[in-house]
Amino acid sequence: MAAAFLPATSLRLAPYSTLRFLSFFPISNPSYSLFRRQVPRRILPFFEAYPTRRCFCTAVSESLSSGEGKKVENYEKRFGSKVGEFRKKLRIAEVKGGEDQGLSRVGESLSMMGWVRTLRSQSSVTFIEINDGSCLSNLQCVMNPDAEGYDQVESGSILTGASISVQGTIVASQGTKQKVELKVDKIIVVGKCDSSYPIQKKRVSREFLRTKAHLRPRTNTFSAVARVRNTLAFATHKFFQESGFVWVASPIITASDCEGAGEQFCVTTLIPSSHETTDSAIDAIPKTKGGLVDWSKDFFGKPAFLTVSGQLNGETYATALSDVYTFGPTFRAENSNTSRHLAEFWMIEPELAFADLNDDMACATAYLQYVVKYVLDNCKEDMEFFDTWIEKGIIHRLTDVVEKDFLQLGYTDAIELLLKANKKFEFPVKWGLDLQSEHERYITEEAFGGRPVIIRDYPKEIKAFYMRENDDGKTVAAMDMLVPRIGELIGGSQREERLDVLEARLDALKLDKESYWWYLDLRRYGSVPHAGFGLGFERLVQFATGIDNIRDVIPFPRSPGSADF
Amino acid sequence: MAAAFLPATSLRLAPYSTLRFLSFFPISNPSYSLFRRQVPRRILPFFEAYPTRRCFCTAVSESLSSGEGKKVENYEKRFGSKVGEFRKKLRIAEVKGGEDQGLSRVGESLSMMGWVRTLRSQSSVTFIEINDGSCLSNLQCVMNPDAEGYDQVESGSILTGASISVQGTIVASQGTKQKVELKVDKIIVVGKCDSSYPIQKKRVSREFLRTKAHLRPRTNTFSAVARVRNTLAFATHKFFQESGFVWVASPIITASDCEGAGEQFCVTTLIPSSHETTDSAIDAIPKTKGGLVDWSKDFFGKPAFLTVSGQLNGETYATALSDVYTFGPTFRAENSNTSRHLAEFWMIEPELAFADLNDDMACATAYLQYVVKYVLDNCKEDMEFFDTWIEKGIIHRLTDVVEKDFLQLGYTDAIELLLKANKKFEFPVKWGLDLQSEHERYITEEAFGGRPVIIRDYPKEIKAFYMRENDDGKTVAAMDMLVPRIGELIGGSQREERLDVLEARLDALKLDKESYWWYLDLRRYGSVPHAGFGLGFERLVQFATGIDNIRDVIPFPRSPGSADF
Repeated sequence: MAAAFLPATSLRLAPYSTLRFLSFFPISNPSYSLFRRQVPRRILPFFEAYPTRRCFCTAVSESLSSGEGKKVENYEKRFGSKVGEFRKKLRIAEVKGGEDQGLSRVGESLSMMGWVRTLRSQSSVTFIEINDGSCLSNLQCVMNPDAEGYDQVESGSILTGASISVQGTIVASQGTKQKVELKVDKIIVVGKCDSSYPIQKKRVSREFLRTKAHLRPRTNTFSAVARVRNTLAFATHKFFQESGFVWVASPIITASDCEGAGEQFCVTTLIPSSHETTDSAIDAIPKTKGGLVDWSKDFFGKPAFLTVSGQLNGETYATALSDVYTFGPTFRAENSNTSRHLAEFWMIEPELAFADLNDDMACATAYLQYVVKYVLDNCKEDMEFFDTWIEKGIIHRLTDVVEKDFLQLGYTDAIELLLKANKKFEFPVKWGLDLQSEHERYITEEAFGGRPVIIRDYPKEIKAFYMRENDDGKTVAAMDMLVPRIGELIGGSQREERLDVLEARLDALKLDKESYWWYLDLRRYGSVPHAGFGLGFERLVQFATGIDNIRDVIPFPRSPGSADF
Repeated sequence: MAAAFLPATSLRLAPYSTLRFLSFFPISNPSYSLFRRQVPRRILPFFEAYPTRRCFCTAVSESLSSGEGKKVENYEKRFGSKVGEFRKKLRIAEVKGGEDQGLSRVGESLSMMGWVRTLRSQSSVTFIEINDGSCLSNLQCVMNPDAEGYDQVESGSILTGASISVQGTIVASQGTKQKVELKVDKIIVVGKCDSSYPIQKKRVSREFLRTKAHLRPRTNTFSAVARVRNTLAFATHKFFQESGFVWVASPIITASDCEGAGEQFCVTTLIPSSHETTDSAIDAIPKTKGGLVDWSKDFFGKPAFLTVSGQLNGETYATALSDVYTFGPTFRAENSNTSRHLAEFWMIEPELAFADLNDDMACATAYLQYVVKYVLDNCKEDMEFFDTWIEKGIIHRLTDVVEKDFLQLGYTDAIELLLKANKKFEFPVKWGLDLQSEHERYITEEAFGGRPVIIRDYPKEIKAFYMRENDDGKTVAAMDMLVPRIGELIGGSQREERLDVLEARLDALKLDKESYWWYLDLRRYGSVPHAGFGLGFERLVQFATGIDNIRDVIPFPRSPGSADF
């Protein structure tokens, strides 16, 4: 393996060029000092946009074993050697991703690495397309039989999926599919690919790929989803940071009694089990004299669960730091084996202090427009892919979301609208009943022609205890944002900040006030009007990519019967 | 409550100023349309640094009930009304946080909100310091008896912890503690504070505050920790995003057999329990005829656990997208009730493809220097607080980390160094044994005078199966980064990418190759040299703040017997 990465000797490079290969040298390798010659290197600030000639090279470190460091007389001072400088790899996205699709790089000598997507051999020339995951585009590598390492092409040892390293020159492409390609001087096979490789050029079903969750990011669809998902996540942090929100890690495991609704997973160390053995004797579970599970023996001394929401914890920080948001995993132990549900998913839950429902709706709207615009601006190629292959018109749909005003509509008015709609619904429409998905999609997709709509002021009976009661005594300051294709994307509310009203509500719902002592404390000590919302991150990824099944927008989906990888 | 937020009428404001109060109006409030007068507002791009006169105001939304929207004749088109514009609140950090500490704002009329930290009444003037969590600094509010709402000061209803809203003018301060203060024209008590409020000006112990985890972010120390923690998290995302890494959500729940080491929490729905009832009958747990737990009846159909590391999953994405990182919670069910251990903590695990151990060390070093520099640059006030009250000299220590080269040292050489050290260690020093905390701290704190040191190339017997074997056959390409005060902060390695070597290693360790089928696939199909590291985020927060106990750097710490809130 190491031999595969010996430095190139025949490249047309300026002296002291930083163009080098990976250096998988054992420390004692005799060629080490040759390779590691101390060239004057300018100190680059981190991540400056490198000019031309940049390519991936390992950090240069001085060898501990080079002899010079081993002067025992001043041991402590001389012993360690510097850690090398970190440099970004040159990625295909940087070669082809610019406005000119790489034309400005014509003539450059580069070294690139990636995985083979296709290989076509013609009489005197071989085309290899490689992908490194940095973008959807492959880099076309063109090779004549005189290229170093061509024998490996001839011997048929380079199959789809193999990883290779290529050196050569960027030239204008003869083909129409790309502006530039790499004329290869040298090819090195880094890792061969067994012919059983399941990710071949022919299209395979997404159901099949779910059984290959470790390999599916090597496909166009899943790598594009991964990049868009990443971009949405970073845009989320960017939006809230720029708005002065503080990211708060809400707890994952909780034994708090006021966690509330939703079926929860139990977290325990009581059942003797491990990956090695699944033979867990019931008798080994600690029990009380009455035959009950003895929770006092459990790790946390009482039953503990996986969180279903970080909201209540978020409120504690919002009433100290003003504006906060959580972004972390949440869990539902519901036995819903559908394309819309996951047992484990990521939630974003902002909480705004000194804020009412109008602020909350405005924040949710600005947030959604910001992250969608960020993806449209920064994932152009991936979005065009989704527009072509996944959902025709998605770019247009998302552009509308960014550019058009969102609408708000009272629940009472929404019911009136639905009752007057010239449409048969499966579920009944009546004041006091919750809206079903068919109603929500009718409102956003048909009644308002694809615009996101926020429904507000729901009947208090169908909403959570903590939502602020409106002056009509019948509704609460809750809101749901509905978007086309997804239905409810965001749900939020102003929280009941009045201690007496909140306590009365807990009493009415027969909830134990003692359990909510710390939540009530927030109202006892300097209470403020506050509001927030929750957004299921995977729903957002679906919304932004057009992917139908929620299991295809999270790397390793968890659902009933399925927690592999 | 709503009455407290009626619009001010007597402020010295330009016509059409956006200075307004919160609008907690019921929709049918008759003053609504008055308040909501349609003034020409320029469209502000999100989060532009606002000029003067900006203050918190709610999004302006048109009233559904204002009558005009209710023309039933063109119902569908006219029904909804626009969602308002989202605006940042004006925060104390923005008033006092600039280079001039607010002097450029002298003469501005502002409206501010926050929680009362102190109140001092003198004969003719009252000083109230408020804090809104945006920075450590309070805003000093100075009030004469002629201020509107002064009666509430007189009546003694404003105690430490109360939330208030104040309007007034920024003036140069007579005091030496701050450059500017707010001369108050009007004060409104938003939420009173009960006199039992446990967060008083007198200092209380951090042990006590752990029992008040919902209120402790209202203290100087914990709000500063929250802000620095937030800044470290965002700097982490920023570093990796700027370097082309993709954030990957590694799974939290896993039934994978190759999760490996560490005591794990079991995640189950088999035990009938809930927050409401802890009476869980053992008999109700599904069992096989042999008296074993019947895992086939569990949610995932087999035993499932909370993840201890996202690394193996991260590798699957690195070998598709080149460079990725995880940032999510991980868990240990170890019964360690110490100031260094948490049952639930956040990990950052980057994974670099086409990279060796040198790249890995260089990345870890650049990462740490980047995030520490980011905190020093962006959290100056909080860092000065830590330097004064928590750890003298911390700014100097961290500046060294940013500016000085990190050192690397072979494990073998580290052993030699320790053996020659003129120091008695509690634990033995011998080639083949792991380094203990005392050894690590000696190396970084004493031998190298406070510089971070990376130890590399550990004996393979004391390291994990997936680490790449060096050519000496005895050591693996592993590295630990040691920093003063903490000891090991980062641990990483180059991963064994050679299928045959990895399989032999699994065999030698008597691990079941079948269980690792998907991990081995990564080596079967286009394997590449790759490397990564893991960093416990809370350790990093401790390192950057000087806070001794790890339970004080995470909002809601989980440890044996403790999962409250």
